[in-house]
Amino acid sequence: MRSHVMGLSVAMVAVAALAPLAPAVAADDATLMKQANEQFKPVPATIPEIKGNAVTHDRIDLGRMLFFETRLSKSHLLSCNTCHNLSMGGDDNLETSIGHGWQKGPRNAPTALNAVLNTAQFWDGRAEDLKAQAKGPVQAGVEMASTPALVEATLLSMPAYVEKFTTAFPGEKAPVNFDNMAKAIEAFEATLMTPASPFDQFLQGDANALTAEQKTGLGLFMDKGCVACHNGVNLGGNGYYPFGVVERPGADVLPVADKGRFAVTKTASEEYVFRAAPLRNVALTAPYFHSGKVWDLEQAVAIMGSSQLGETLKADEIKAITAFLTSLTGEQPRVELPILPTSTATTPKPAPMTP
Amino acid sequence: MRSHVMGLSVAMVAVAALAPLAPAVAADDATLMKQANEQFKPVPATIPEIKGNAVTHDRIDLGRMLFFETRLSKSHLLSCNTCHNLSMGGDDNLETSIGHGWQKGPRNAPTALNAVLNTAQFWDGRAEDLKAQAKGPVQAGVEMASTPALVEATLLSMPAYVEKFTTAFPGEKAPVNFDNMAKAIEAFEATLMTPASPFDQFLQGDANALTAEQKTGLGLFMDKGCVACHNGVNLGGNGYYPFGVVERPGADVLPVADKGRFAVTKTASEEYVFRAAPLRNVALTAPYFHSGKVWDLEQAVAIMGSSQLGETLKADEIKAITAFLTSLTGEQPRVELPILPTSTATTPKPAPMTP
Repeated sequence: MRSHVMGLSVAMVAVAALAPLAPAVAADDATLMKQANEQFKPVPATIPEIKGNAVTHDRIDLGRMLFFETRLSKSHLLSCNTCHNLSMGGDDNLETSIGHGWQKGPRNAPTALNAVLNTAQFWDGRAEDLKAQAKGPVQAGVEMASTPALVEATLLSMPAYVEKFTTAFPGEKAPVNFDNMAKAIEAFEATLMTPASPFDQFLQGDANALTAEQKTGLGLFMDKGCVACHNGVNLGGNGYYPFGVVERPGADVLPVADKGRFAVTKTASEEYVFRAAPLRNVALTAPYFHSGKVWDLEQAVAIMGSSQLGETLKADEIKAITAFLTSLTGEQPRVELPILPTSTATTPKPAPMTP
Repeated sequence: MRSHVMGLSVAMVAVAALAPLAPAVAADDATLMKQANEQFKPVPATIPEIKGNAVTHDRIDLGRMLFFETRLSKSHLLSCNTCHNLSMGGDDNLETSIGHGWQKGPRNAPTALNAVLNTAQFWDGRAEDLKAQAKGPVQAGVEMASTPALVEATLLSMPAYVEKFTTAFPGEKAPVNFDNMAKAIEAFEATLMTPASPFDQFLQGDANALTAEQKTGLGLFMDKGCVACHNGVNLGGNGYYPFGVVERPGADVLPVADKGRFAVTKTASEEYVFRAAPLRNVALTAPYFHSGKVWDLEQAVAIMGSSQLGETLKADEIKAITAFLTSLTGEQPRVELPILPTSTATTPKPAPMTP
């Protein structure tokens, strides 16, 4: 229990006002800051390195085009940005996404923001990186419903794309291919960082970046055990855990048919196992959980308390943890809409009405 | 016939090289330029005034948010930009648009670029301005499927929108309303100008801005009579004409059920009457006609020749006119994706699966 932090830090502000030589960071804040820095890391303001993918300007620029490219979908209506909307926290704020033919997808779309920092992608971690991830929705019948061959034919039909791929992947004999499409998108996504959240400012030494209630919430988040799954730079996105460590939620929140990571590993012990959701910008990405059935962040915190920690959190604890979670909202990436090449006579036509 | 222009202008370049005191613009170019300036006007690089709508920075900025606001649709999936995609010439490059529930719209989406310069909006001119136009798709069951009440409840639920509307519509008691939504979108759309096309540079005195073939095409465009309907700043968008002045095209291009402006005026003489399509950026906005059934610009020119002019245009004439039409592509607006306010507990939930 750290709810005492709130009262103390107010007292320290008063003391600081009377005594200019008092330390810049109050003792209790310093302790909390130290403890937090052992569990979490700030979102980098720079673009991280990606194994096997040189994140060059040319590749980022091409990736930005492809991220907004509706012609990667069979219908020519859907792009990456449709479900990972950069205007709205990097997701679509729907329970589950709408795809080709208005089909309803099986799981809630995770945010593309800071996603490059996750250990694996998708709710079940079935893609080891964003390059592998990017290939999924393009091909999924319930999402963009395209194929690698159709994507390649589409991109090859437009000279401006051929030039962009040739520049972004120098020295390659056939640079316009599905794999490089995914690499370029991954490079662009590596720029989708949200640094400088209040929490990160706190981690970096500014004790006043969090409100007293948020500090209380941070303390609770660590002391109650939330941190066991939600740690590291993204406060999650780096490990797999059963939804219902202690008590499985009802079928309204945890639908029986979606067994999570079991579908990937076929291991009985991994039934209803999911990747711990990364919590960066979580206040922007309702509704919550893989089912998208919970719209209220406080309710999501309460469910996590009972299902994962086996504890009925008190109302003021839930409020404080939720206040802390809102401190994870960072600076949103500013993206200029790309101007895309015009289709040519050989560009495959949209087929919105075929399955 | 003006195909002689090509040969002469090449000759004049040679003369100019030998005689530095020769006039900057060759006589034939000057004649063509003069004739063109009588029929057309360059796209303004500045934002035009709009009657009854002060195009302020605050209004433009709010309008940009609303243009990308998926929560103006019942599903929370579709925004103005879905069908008027600013990455792709201001339309969706589909035969007809896809709307709520994946319904297929009745007509091809016109471009939002330079649309503020049209005399009236929609293929049948049923909206007198963009403010009236913006209200249509938001409410159409086949498009965004929302209602004024739902839009107002949605916008009122987010304090950031309330603040933006209050600033953009100062002195109003209840600034967050459906009418002001439309006004803000109209203000943003007034910024979606594409100045400095090669054709506009030609109109403004640069004889070298058009190729010889484009000059030939411009001459044909005027001499053959295309200019009768496609004139003014947008080369169209300012008058109503029967599709099939001379000969009605087949039902593949002109579907029998869509009687155009007849539905607006209920006047028998206006069956199959449509607004002359504005031709700015036409090379970016395939497929063509209200039915969206023609993908090839040369084919569209040929159809216009037979249906509107009663003339079978020759292959080289079609090529030259098409070359001229590609000179109508102007500088595309550079738009930063807005960061939208986060939904609150009182924001109406998306309802993608209800009709």
